[in-house]
Amino acid sequence: MASSSSSDSSAPQTPQLRKDSVTNRWVIFSPARAKRPSDFKSKSPVNPNQQHQQQCPFCIGHEHECAPEIFRVPPDNPDWKLRVIQNLYPALSRDIPAAEEGNNSDSGRVVVNGFGFHDVVIETPVHSVQLSDLSPREIGEVLVTYTRRIKQLMSYDSIKYVQVFKNHGASAGASMSHSHSQIMALPVVPSAVATRLGSMKEYFDQTGKCSVCESNSKDLLIDVSAHFISIVPFAATFPFEMWIIPLDHSSHFHELDSEKAVELGGILKLVLRKMSLQLNNPPFNFMVQTSPLGDNASQLLYSHWFMQIVPQLSVVAGFEMGTGCYINPVFPEDAAKVLREVKVSPSE
Amino acid sequence: MASSSSSDSSAPQTPQLRKDSVTNRWVIFSPARAKRPSDFKSKSPVNPNQQHQQQCPFCIGHEHECAPEIFRVPPDNPDWKLRVIQNLYPALSRDIPAAEEGNNSDSGRVVVNGFGFHDVVIETPVHSVQLSDLSPREIGEVLVTYTRRIKQLMSYDSIKYVQVFKNHGASAGASMSHSHSQIMALPVVPSAVATRLGSMKEYFDQTGKCSVCESNSKDLLIDVSAHFISIVPFAATFPFEMWIIPLDHSSHFHELDSEKAVELGGILKLVLRKMSLQLNNPPFNFMVQTSPLGDNASQLLYSHWFMQIVPQLSVVAGFEMGTGCYINPVFPEDAAKVLREVKVSPSE
Repeated sequence: MASSSSSDSSAPQTPQLRKDSVTNRWVIFSPARAKRPSDFKSKSPVNPNQQHQQQCPFCIGHEHECAPEIFRVPPDNPDWKLRVIQNLYPALSRDIPAAEEGNNSDSGRVVVNGFGFHDVVIETPVHSVQLSDLSPREIGEVLVTYTRRIKQLMSYDSIKYVQVFKNHGASAGASMSHSHSQIMALPVVPSAVATRLGSMKEYFDQTGKCSVCESNSKDLLIDVSAHFISIVPFAATFPFEMWIIPLDHSSHFHELDSEKAVELGGILKLVLRKMSLQLNNPPFNFMVQTSPLGDNASQLLYSHWFMQIVPQLSVVAGFEMGTGCYINPVFPEDAAKVLREVKVSPSE
Repeated sequence: MASSSSSDSSAPQTPQLRKDSVTNRWVIFSPARAKRPSDFKSKSPVNPNQQHQQQCPFCIGHEHECAPEIFRVPPDNPDWKLRVIQNLYPALSRDIPAAEEGNNSDSGRVVVNGFGFHDVVIETPVHSVQLSDLSPREIGEVLVTYTRRIKQLMSYDSIKYVQVFKNHGASAGASMSHSHSQIMALPVVPSAVATRLGSMKEYFDQTGKCSVCESNSKDLLIDVSAHFISIVPFAATFPFEMWIIPLDHSSHFHELDSEKAVELGGILKLVLRKMSLQLNNPPFNFMVQTSPLGDNASQLLYSHWFMQIVPQLSVVAGFEMGTGCYINPVFPEDAAKVLREVKVSPSE
């Protein structure tokens, strides 16, 4: 027996499978496995008072210990606020020939040279400062730095997609505790992006609407500003997963202007603060979900960028690896209600 | 510049992206980030000498502390060797109406009742015994138990797919240390399974061949028995990921007969022992990758079951979550060579 998507604010108490038209992936919502939504806390919080490491190459004054710099803000200033540098252990190489897709049709195996870019954005010169400690204007500068680097990377014809992401805390994949994010420029459109674009296109072809524009519903809303909303997505893959969505339809994150970047910085700061207060400062990841580069005018109609923020509260295990289907113990309506009600004081 | 899939036994030393016709997912192979392949070890090994827990409900004599039993081997015998029981915290419910797929076309959101089954297979009555400690014949009995339970679950029309998996070690998602595996019966075909089937179909339509039958190549081989091979897949998602593949084309794991189950038990024991010796007894997952249930005769031509074994050596972080593209520091040819050469003594 099918139930239609509900707009009730009370979440059901029996398990339910959901799929949305953005990720097109089944998620099992299973309240029987859960604590009360308000009882979720990280068991391995990131220590906010970590000591300054004398050895940290990301700290101001240690620039010579890093891989080469790409640019800094302000330019040529030893008293920098932000630096974009090469990753010392890049997953892709900028020093090999750019690749065309190759196909060995005998075996179905495809191989492409690992040409690409893997950069690091040092978000602050000060070791003890976290991204959410910065002001909306300063976070806006980090976001504008992402867009500026993406625009540089777009000049390479062989770069098909740029992934901006942040790993915060060791269990979320951060090997350095100094606050930073990463930018990877890829010679292929990765599979999850192709799947997302395909799903958005299918929905647009059926309805004439953008699936992300349609994500806004009252029971999933966390906060709203002039041009952005933060929500818990209808088929959230992970407990307390959050999306920040620009209200104006826009396909590419790198088209963000500096004024809206400050506003986005403010709403990002707010969700990061709420997540930290509610979930005991958990390790987390955020990802900019944008559209492939290159000319595809029809894609602009149905693709819509957003930021995805995921606290690390659960382990990915055999079931998820086998099926690509995740088990989420917290219904999105419940998570959104909890996050709506977190009080963040202005001084925090 | 494209290079075709190589049959050289020496792996390249620059990054490379690969995709195969089974998973159809890009993987970045990045040797610059790696130790030597032979230096990979788990930093958080599972303690093989863990104490018997007086409180363990999976131990013989504690049956009354468990959720209801489905069957045991041998039947009605207090001195059991294997038990299949309900999961005390099932992700899906057997007590709600079976669901038909529902679609709210206005929003693109799909909701299905969480009807399904979530069972546990207790692989041994003895707390200190691990799966790889059992004899090939005993492991064969565990595998036959999986097939027997799948055949029971097939009687429900609304069950579309059955996922058999094992989580070994806390960081691989095991909440109980007593050796067990899990069986989940789902009312939908999960997305990763649909993607795999679609990719296999595309390859079959192009070539008339089964993509898994074609996976056998000398430089990726670990071991071989009469009816099975163990390999490192060409586009392995994770370092030292291994597949065990039946040499005879077969779509459904549950058609395994008891004689071949003993042989599969032997080759599974061998890869688990090799993994444990080479990688310092890492936490791991295994997944049976099989075909959806139900009548689809053409699917039988191109779908081919296999077992996927994944040691937990790396963290899934923002890049992987954003793109679905994984970074693997060990080329499959190198991992296969290392695993081929591990010496397992008969007494182990």
